[in-house]
Amino acid sequence: MKARVHITLKSGVLDPQGKAIEHSLADLGFAGVGDVRQGKYIELDLTETDPEKARADVTAMCEKLLANTVIENYVIDLDA
Amino acid sequence: MKARVHITLKSGVLDPQGKAIEHSLADLGFAGVGDVRQGKYIELDLTETDPEKARADVTAMCEKLLANTVIENYVIDLDA
Repeated sequence: MKARVHITLKSGVLDPQGKAIEHSLADLGFAGVGDVRQGKYIELDLTETDPEKARADVTAMCEKLLANTVIENYVIDLDA
Repeated sequence: MKARVHITLKSGVLDPQGKAIEHSLADLGFAGVGDVRQGKYIELDLTETDPEKARADVTAMCEKLLANTVIENYVIDLDA
């Protein structure tokens, strides 16, 4: 089973990487680009086949290692 | 219109960040985790409303700035 995790900064948390991209795009001549936010995307191969148990495992991984839950949100998607 | 871009390393390109996550998860006692790959996830707010033009713009942004197309793939999703 494959898990895909999106980790994004909570709204209201300053995102310097996103701002840097925004300014670079403007410098390159791309008009009409508003807010840019950058997050992380992690793909994990799991041997677990039960979706409920896999989701519980990945949630624990996010809480303990992958995300800083003070400033970041995470979303977990599971593929069969 | 909102664009969501996933940038991932091409298969075969070594992913040290993914490997570090893999080992840290094993150290934390998470069994059953196979390959881990880390990519980037970028959300852009666009003033462009025509989906075709927006996709062309974001493709140009990926080619010129967001992705290193020698070693990275990108996927663009557009929201109305």
